[in-house]
Amino acid sequence: MKKPLILVTNDDGINAPGIKALVEAAKEFGEVVVVAPDSPQSGQGHAITISKPVWIKKVEVFDGIDSYECSGTPVDCVKLAQYVILKGRKADLCISGINHGSNASINIIYSGTMSAAMEASLEGIESIGFSLLDFSWSADFNPAKKIAKQIIQQVLEKGMGSCKLLNVNIPNVPEEDIKGIKICRQADGRWLEGYQESTDPRGKPYYWLSGEFVNPDKGTDTDIWALDNGYVSVVPSGHDLTKYDSLLQMNYLESSRIRDIDKVDV
Amino acid sequence: MKKPLILVTNDDGINAPGIKALVEAAKEFGEVVVVAPDSPQSGQGHAITISKPVWIKKVEVFDGIDSYECSGTPVDCVKLAQYVILKGRKADLCISGINHGSNASINIIYSGTMSAAMEASLEGIESIGFSLLDFSWSADFNPAKKIAKQIIQQVLEKGMGSCKLLNVNIPNVPEEDIKGIKICRQADGRWLEGYQESTDPRGKPYYWLSGEFVNPDKGTDTDIWALDNGYVSVVPSGHDLTKYDSLLQMNYLESSRIRDIDKVDV
Repeated sequence: MKKPLILVTNDDGINAPGIKALVEAAKEFGEVVVVAPDSPQSGQGHAITISKPVWIKKVEVFDGIDSYECSGTPVDCVKLAQYVILKGRKADLCISGINHGSNASINIIYSGTMSAAMEASLEGIESIGFSLLDFSWSADFNPAKKIAKQIIQQVLEKGMGSCKLLNVNIPNVPEEDIKGIKICRQADGRWLEGYQESTDPRGKPYYWLSGEFVNPDKGTDTDIWALDNGYVSVVPSGHDLTKYDSLLQMNYLESSRIRDIDKVDV
Repeated sequence: MKKPLILVTNDDGINAPGIKALVEAAKEFGEVVVVAPDSPQSGQGHAITISKPVWIKKVEVFDGIDSYECSGTPVDCVKLAQYVILKGRKADLCISGINHGSNASINIIYSGTMSAAMEASLEGIESIGFSLLDFSWSADFNPAKKIAKQIIQQVLEKGMGSCKLLNVNIPNVPEEDIKGIKICRQADGRWLEGYQESTDPRGKPYYWLSGEFVNPDKGTDTDIWALDNGYVSVVPSGHDLTKYDSLLQMNYLESSRIRDIDKVDV
């Protein structure tokens, strides 16, 4: 069998420890090409660079691995990989991460790691985002690497069918305390924000985002439940945001004409 | 009845013509507060500013309307509106736009306009993103404004139930050719990208994103079909990316242990 072509990216930047672990996991399975941001891009979501150009630089970061850093967002990296660097060779698998910090629940929509993986999935490439629930730059990525290998091997062997995107999160517990791997749905949690308010050196008030994740979703089939209970969570994910169960309810808006609302009375 | 509090935002920036049209539509229904980016933020997706602070400035842009420009992304604007500017007063409705250009189909995930509306929806605020399929800064927003008023009035009157987010796109046709309003699902289209390659003044090659939208999804229940056929499309949308129909298929990944993969054989 031809060795699979594996595209590796992330959002913490090409020099982050997490991507090193993922490259090491991936290179045992096939040909690896790394295209990652030249600087940290956490919280970039699905941002793309359209109002200015982006630059690519071939770098020597991982022994014997073709590697490129890019001035853009994680999603830019995947677009550049497919359309410029691989020049039409389609990757067999895209893996993104290992992210420093959780991308479970609603974090998927803020996450550059998951957005990069989603972008590849839009191209029909089976894609997996990996995150370890440890923000520390000195986190131990060895258990996460082992888990990534286990999942990559199975996905390369069995495929993902109509699903093209997995959101994998790994709890921050010692390896021997990991209870296993669970397929989950995305928990319906969100961020309750705060802002640190202060004054800049020119006397202007500024606001710096802080916040706390809250999860009112008590289902035992969610990624948050799995992580809280020592499991690796795997959420098969897509890109269709339609809320199908509201199609009927909202059809009161359907209309065969545009009305002139002269007098507003609410 | 107490007048509703309506938060208005966008991604084209507080000086864009589209937001002016939306403010004019909104102010007939209630108290309007505008919090919008101080510069164009198209393609910012769900990006948030976390590695640096953001600034807010009270501005006089719309007669008699409390207005603030913000140095951050569209999502930052909504977070700042809720947590700093409105200080816990919860908006009754958030409207975002009117965007210059389509946010139908997969554009929803790249769109700052829709991400801002989605962010408000995560707070439980009924939210609507409006887009006009016309990139021109001199586009005629009058028909779009009329449509926005029609939808806002109905939503304020009837509510959105469990749905908190609508993606409204308006075709670029003369008002008399608009056939009506349709509730749709998100078409499964995507961008086929290209890059304009050139060399910068310092001799370094650069890449500038271009691309073409393609839609292999031939359903007549999609937003793209509606727009192509002269209808305003309304997609009830959510934030749950779980691909439920793949939960069973992917459960081959479930495992009660982490295996050591010593010998990789694919």
